[in-house]
Amino acid sequence: MTDFELEFWFDFASPYAYLSAGRLDDWMSSAGINVRWMPFLLGPVFKKQGWQTSPFNLYPLKGKYMWRDIERLSKRYDVCFNRPDEFPQHTLLATRVAMAGCDEDWLPAFCKRIFHKEFGLGQDISGMKAVISSLEGLVDNPAGWMKRAVTAKTKKALVERGTEAERKSIFGAPSFITPDGELFWGDDRLEHAIEWILRRR
Amino acid sequence: MTDFELEFWFDFASPYAYLSAGRLDDWMSSAGINVRWMPFLLGPVFKKQGWQTSPFNLYPLKGKYMWRDIERLSKRYDVCFNRPDEFPQHTLLATRVAMAGCDEDWLPAFCKRIFHKEFGLGQDISGMKAVISSLEGLVDNPAGWMKRAVTAKTKKALVERGTEAERKSIFGAPSFITPDGELFWGDDRLEHAIEWILRRR
Repeated sequence: MTDFELEFWFDFASPYAYLSAGRLDDWMSSAGINVRWMPFLLGPVFKKQGWQTSPFNLYPLKGKYMWRDIERLSKRYDVCFNRPDEFPQHTLLATRVAMAGCDEDWLPAFCKRIFHKEFGLGQDISGMKAVISSLEGLVDNPAGWMKRAVTAKTKKALVERGTEAERKSIFGAPSFITPDGELFWGDDRLEHAIEWILRRR
Repeated sequence: MTDFELEFWFDFASPYAYLSAGRLDDWMSSAGINVRWMPFLLGPVFKKQGWQTSPFNLYPLKGKYMWRDIERLSKRYDVCFNRPDEFPQHTLLATRVAMAGCDEDWLPAFCKRIFHKEFGLGQDISGMKAVISSLEGLVDNPAGWMKRAVTAKTKKALVERGTEAERKSIFGAPSFITPDGELFWGDDRLEHAIEWILRRR
């Protein structure tokens, strides 16, 4: 069992999580930070705060700013960005596949493919086709993983993941949690989380 | 008339604006950025979003995280931080004084004193005493400025400032606006705003 140094909590619907997902590899290789990818669903978290959709939709000024901010940050980080037509997208299927593969080596690669399709290319990632094509070449049996994604076991694991998020006081994504339980929220706090870990090594 | 390169929009009630207020001097001297301090009231902005108080109070998880984040950032920036008993504080009087002195050289020093009392020392800054003592030594006639703060002219200027905030799509504080109208929101975007300006010089 690997000791993880940083938990990366994300919902595929989050544009800021897209940016973090693309930046984690650099930190993993430059600082040797061992990251655990923690897919979860923001929907239930938002509902508990009384929101039926993303706050970026509920508060249009904030939403408009967010897209501009993401555009600027994408340039800053040298990553593609194309705004998808729909926001937030239905991420349940992709999230279930990620949960089914939560202990697999291919998990980060799969997640980055989903994020890239969604925010790099601006595509719809809600359906079977987008999800299965993100598995192809990464796993021997993509169809098998699609089946595993909808088993009762995976669904239960996803619900438990939500309970864990709540226990850890997570209220948005991306969130980063260190082994000593320190919570950092937002792509702009990734470096703070890394420094927190490095100072305690 | 000075040409301003960066507008710093703030409400005295914002802990993140406190952090930015303390960091602007460094940028002003190191990069020669000419900052215009723009006091305004967040209350009316929040009300338009349907909030009767700060979102940090409306969403307790987010609020709890914010205070922890401010505590960490204060250490990072080497500034004092003491959480005041009340949040958000009534900033109307201090804001009116700042509006009365919006073209005066003492404005930044006055604002930094208010912020320091409030979040550096954790004191109440809503009353006359805290406000007038923040003027002492900065202006010849503190009592005169206290009177000017409550004139119809100043009140009108403050309302117009709110209209300007709305026109500029400001939805929170601190916000930074460049001469070409680019909006940056949050203390963590101060450096982005500075870079934006420097690249265009």
